[in-house]
Amino acid sequence: MIPFSFDLLHQDTRTQARRGRIHTSRGKIETPIFMPVGTQATVKGLLPEALKEVGAQIILANTYHLFLRPGHQTVQDLGGLHRFMNWDRPILTDSGGFQVFSLGQLRKISEEGVLFQSHLDGSTHLLTPELATGVQEALGADIIMAFDECIAYPSPRDYVQRSTDLSARWARRCKEARREGDGSALFGIVQGGMFPDLRRKSCEDLLEIGFDGYALGGLSVGEEASVMYDVMEATLPHLPHDHPRYVMGVGTPENLIEGISRGVDMFDCVMPTRNARNGVLFTSFGRISIKQARYARDEQPVDPACGCYVCRNYSRAYLRHLYQSGEILASVLNTHHNIHYYLDLMASARSAIEANSFVEFKRDFYHQRATH
Amino acid sequence: MIPFSFDLLHQDTRTQARRGRIHTSRGKIETPIFMPVGTQATVKGLLPEALKEVGAQIILANTYHLFLRPGHQTVQDLGGLHRFMNWDRPILTDSGGFQVFSLGQLRKISEEGVLFQSHLDGSTHLLTPELATGVQEALGADIIMAFDECIAYPSPRDYVQRSTDLSARWARRCKEARREGDGSALFGIVQGGMFPDLRRKSCEDLLEIGFDGYALGGLSVGEEASVMYDVMEATLPHLPHDHPRYVMGVGTPENLIEGISRGVDMFDCVMPTRNARNGVLFTSFGRISIKQARYARDEQPVDPACGCYVCRNYSRAYLRHLYQSGEILASVLNTHHNIHYYLDLMASARSAIEANSFVEFKRDFYHQRATH
Repeated sequence: MIPFSFDLLHQDTRTQARRGRIHTSRGKIETPIFMPVGTQATVKGLLPEALKEVGAQIILANTYHLFLRPGHQTVQDLGGLHRFMNWDRPILTDSGGFQVFSLGQLRKISEEGVLFQSHLDGSTHLLTPELATGVQEALGADIIMAFDECIAYPSPRDYVQRSTDLSARWARRCKEARREGDGSALFGIVQGGMFPDLRRKSCEDLLEIGFDGYALGGLSVGEEASVMYDVMEATLPHLPHDHPRYVMGVGTPENLIEGISRGVDMFDCVMPTRNARNGVLFTSFGRISIKQARYARDEQPVDPACGCYVCRNYSRAYLRHLYQSGEILASVLNTHHNIHYYLDLMASARSAIEANSFVEFKRDFYHQRATH
Repeated sequence: MIPFSFDLLHQDTRTQARRGRIHTSRGKIETPIFMPVGTQATVKGLLPEALKEVGAQIILANTYHLFLRPGHQTVQDLGGLHRFMNWDRPILTDSGGFQVFSLGQLRKISEEGVLFQSHLDGSTHLLTPELATGVQEALGADIIMAFDECIAYPSPRDYVQRSTDLSARWARRCKEARREGDGSALFGIVQGGMFPDLRRKSCEDLLEIGFDGYALGGLSVGEEASVMYDVMEATLPHLPHDHPRYVMGVGTPENLIEGISRGVDMFDCVMPTRNARNGVLFTSFGRISIKQARYARDEQPVDPACGCYVCRNYSRAYLRHLYQSGEILASVLNTHHNIHYYLDLMASARSAIEANSFVEFKRDFYHQRATH
């Protein structure tokens, strides 16, 4: 079994962009990378073969959802999440912290953990750092996330400070709760809201505990993009170069490019999948809404510059027809294209970093959008 | 271009079961065959590649739906239905007759045709034999169905008689309206309700006009299975052996086996696709409802005797989880399995007929269901 490790392969000469490689027992992950979200043990609308076709190297699954249904014990008894969902490449599981706050009801936070009611059946559960870690281990995750409190935005400084300190104590308990020797990684999550000094303090607390990788949580929660970038810039320099950095729940293609140029290695977001189901498609020249009447007789592919299965085989007119007709294939094809777009963008970014041309790549990225 | 033709390859020695081959300009169709239903220019949940993987040789599309949305002219302008939906094998289009009666509102039947209101937007349309034929030609169908009146069951004999006569006059108009020389086929539709003599009369009327194939319409409309089989037995002997026979809208696996043993070559039905979306799966030992709690921890495939992609890669527990979670892949995987089941059943039937062992095949088919 290959234990988790990270190689920083190349540092761009003119930006903070990094080209790296994560090793896991289930294969390599070339960074920067975007991780498609498979909330309920499925990336909505994409078969594992399609995920591989579009180049997915790692996907994300959701502790909160799988804990409630079908239950981590059931998944473990059935051979683990990889076998359950027929996906043999790496899986990162979030800790459930975000969903407890966004979906759970009547939540009550204590030092011990979070008491919440299931959004499915109202049943009450106490999620603790130890349980969140155990659930992720039972699922068989390759990358386990520490359990943290997701802070609402905006929140008063004193609340953010107390919450960030609590999350640091929880992070320590996650590390202490870990089962040894399965080759998986544990990532800590930097909190601190939009306060640079609290972000720095959070980095220091997590570094003292020591993790395999470091995530930035509490972003993409309603703040301006410029605020998000400021937080990245205020935080990333305090994280070690030889560990992967992951910005959670981010974001638009623009957010990803900006994150990469500031030194982020990993991203996840429901944006490409959720937007796909709403008929919003990402292209090299920006987003389009396929439901618009202008596409009713448009025989072009979604993006003439795209080489994905959808763009090779279907017209905008057909995709609009499927969407208007409420057909399952609308979600399937739109999701396929959007995930391909995101992963292809990451592959291009990686090549640009290797060639020390990330500045030009970024300029072209914006130029194509501006001139369309 | 290869014009439409039918070869009767082998006649079973102990039943009426037939092994045949249809030639079209888009490839061969080995009969007996089941045609998956692709109502709105998509077999719900299955990509064309998946349809090919499960062995689909021909699919059905729906004139009524495509006439209303996106419009046959739009489809034609975009290169025809095959290109529109990325399917290069044969397509049979129904005439719209059935949907006008089951979905259209305020329908008014006259000698000229049927005046109806769209179920989508209430707009009024007059569908005539000439228009129904023209729409199917514009779509680029390989097999075109004559426009007929679908008779409610039960209906009084005098209504059935008048309606069947009207459908015969419409069938003649369809044939006269046909564009020549595109290599497609036109099938007539035998009506006559559940009255053997009216079925026979309908056969005679259609034979006088002359069609490339003959369908039995007005079945699977609420009658007992034994009544359906009686109608098949009363009708099929009056149809020519050297043309394909197609029973429309039928049916269960049992209906197909019984139809084949009486000399039917072609079937279509929404049953495998619609049931799949409702979590009902077909197996060699009968139907199962995947939503049942008994499958929550069941690591077996849907059907241990099945070799399809779904049964090779996923457990009943995972399929139940997807269904319970309302996931898109529930419909995708369930549909894949069900269509594979239907098409594999047809492939086995064809082999049995070739080996003169259809009687044994049919006995085993029922035996597996009875002893489970």
